[in-house]
Amino acid sequence: MRTIEWNCESNTVRMIDQRRLPGSLEYLDCKSSNEMADAIRKMAIRGAPALGVAGAFGIALDAIHHAKSQLADTKKLLRKSARLLEESRPTAVNLAWGIRRVMVVVEKISTSVSDLQQQVLKEALGIADEDVKTNLMLSQNGASLIKDGDTIIHHCNTGALAVVDWGTALGAIRYAHEHGKRVHVLVDETRPRLQGSRLTAWECEQYGIPYEIITDNAAGHFLYSGKVQKVYFGADRVAANGDVVNKIGTYMLSLAAHANHVPVVCVFPISTFDRNVKSGHLVSIEQRDADEVLGIQFHGEAVAPENARVLNPAFDVTPSEYISAWVTEKGIIRPPFSQNIGSCVYNSGLDGE
Amino acid sequence: MRTIEWNCESNTVRMIDQRRLPGSLEYLDCKSSNEMADAIRKMAIRGAPALGVAGAFGIALDAIHHAKSQLADTKKLLRKSARLLEESRPTAVNLAWGIRRVMVVVEKISTSVSDLQQQVLKEALGIADEDVKTNLMLSQNGASLIKDGDTIIHHCNTGALAVVDWGTALGAIRYAHEHGKRVHVLVDETRPRLQGSRLTAWECEQYGIPYEIITDNAAGHFLYSGKVQKVYFGADRVAANGDVVNKIGTYMLSLAAHANHVPVVCVFPISTFDRNVKSGHLVSIEQRDADEVLGIQFHGEAVAPENARVLNPAFDVTPSEYISAWVTEKGIIRPPFSQNIGSCVYNSGLDGE
Repeated sequence: MRTIEWNCESNTVRMIDQRRLPGSLEYLDCKSSNEMADAIRKMAIRGAPALGVAGAFGIALDAIHHAKSQLADTKKLLRKSARLLEESRPTAVNLAWGIRRVMVVVEKISTSVSDLQQQVLKEALGIADEDVKTNLMLSQNGASLIKDGDTIIHHCNTGALAVVDWGTALGAIRYAHEHGKRVHVLVDETRPRLQGSRLTAWECEQYGIPYEIITDNAAGHFLYSGKVQKVYFGADRVAANGDVVNKIGTYMLSLAAHANHVPVVCVFPISTFDRNVKSGHLVSIEQRDADEVLGIQFHGEAVAPENARVLNPAFDVTPSEYISAWVTEKGIIRPPFSQNIGSCVYNSGLDGE
Repeated sequence: MRTIEWNCESNTVRMIDQRRLPGSLEYLDCKSSNEMADAIRKMAIRGAPALGVAGAFGIALDAIHHAKSQLADTKKLLRKSARLLEESRPTAVNLAWGIRRVMVVVEKISTSVSDLQQQVLKEALGIADEDVKTNLMLSQNGASLIKDGDTIIHHCNTGALAVVDWGTALGAIRYAHEHGKRVHVLVDETRPRLQGSRLTAWECEQYGIPYEIITDNAAGHFLYSGKVQKVYFGADRVAANGDVVNKIGTYMLSLAAHANHVPVVCVFPISTFDRNVKSGHLVSIEQRDADEVLGIQFHGEAVAPENARVLNPAFDVTPSEYISAWVTEKGIIRPPFSQNIGSCVYNSGLDGE
């Protein structure tokens, strides 16, 4: 099964509930944009590309189940659904991108409500299928930079669970592994929500990729020790100058890789690229609940004083100077990003190798 | 009460059991080097200076309670106790230092077992009293670098709980706070054992110092945002060239501070300095149990697949080039460390300010 899938019989959306992994594999069904926004907010589904599909499916759910008799009223309702969905994860550009793609279709329809329903669903299903194709292509491109025997530090989760199928950074690692390259992954646990130890380690086990989990703050030690050949991660948003907005911790990991001359590879679909944002520091960073940081127990004990105060930014900005390669489905972009994004010329090998 | 204390009535050692904090304040009593080694290994007591005292007390316990009738046999027994205690935390230089100080006394005695017992206890109690004085002095020196209004990122726990009383890096922050400087602390939670969120946040609450807990990998975001004026931490060992061996994550934090021109202040007693080690990368890094990384639950759920593989280095090496000031009880050492360690001239203000 795909990570998120449209059920054509019931016209509902079924997704893997990622809050339950790796303990158990459970599914969640959504029947409205409201339920979808809730699933996104609570991170039952996460991962930039998967969120694009989730946003598109969210609009389709309302179009099918909550359409009004009049076309104008239906469009009005769907605009409201779009706003609700967009606000569920404000930093994720793919979410807004998926929603907008469907809303362009919505706005164009001038015939009938049933026509709108058909076209919206077709567009949303198309986005999901494209996502699978796109991810396979960028995984293949990302795998071309991996050498036989590489040890790779990977941050957060960017595998099949972050998309519809296949993945971005972890997709590239999996592609290399399935095509006979020996790879070894150091899995950043990725505090606060531990997507690395919970999801990436689980995926590595499914694929048979050798791995060890490390705490995020141990990555520097392994980079310094000379045992790591690459750092791989995805992106939640890439600015026009190549700055990468990604899961908190990406910046410190990139700094440590850079200080130790280890190439930093960022893998993402072109849809993650936001040419409207000149540089990463202009992106507003989502602040999430204290509960994500304090909602753990250490050997059954509380991890902080009661009512402890917390700051919990979900993302950080990695300036483009620390990125060695931006890998997309169209090819690999080399530094300087702004100059080479246009051509997006495929080019194997990394600087400094 | 001190963090670790000799009870002169029962001739036992009482310490705060730091595994129970911040949930509850409980005490642990030790009656032998064996029990002390166990407490050290299980981190009921931790923190470089406190370990020095724990090591000394451990020898004193065996001298008092397990002495043989012959002096030579007693010395032989205590040499064995020393080895056992040293091996309980191999990277911590203060532990070995505290043990060696008492063992020098042991080896010198040529009179009687009861003379040995008296002298050993006197030396161990002296180490504890010196620790309090030393920490107050280095806290005062460390506080001199803090400006009114500073926001400081602090790593691990270096407060009263890490020593006999007062502390090193957190001692300096507390000293500044108690002498009227407004300080604000961003408390690195410090995975895997969370000494930051469990112990440093608890201490900040006791002293009334405003703080927020952050995940270790969020420090870069706050440094990049320009909201942080200083980074403070302690040291487990300082090499002859000024490289700092400290809690895992110190290196990445220092890199991020350096990249953002934020001064990095390392506060430690001179006893932490190991002139026998030329540079940090020659220090063997203690690898600890997977259970420290995986022994947490996230909202009641497992954080990794069953039998997940883990690498868990307890320390890392921060090269001296990233340190702006080494603060000791004798004064502040400025870069280059190797050149200035001899004079250890007190010198206020930091580079780049």
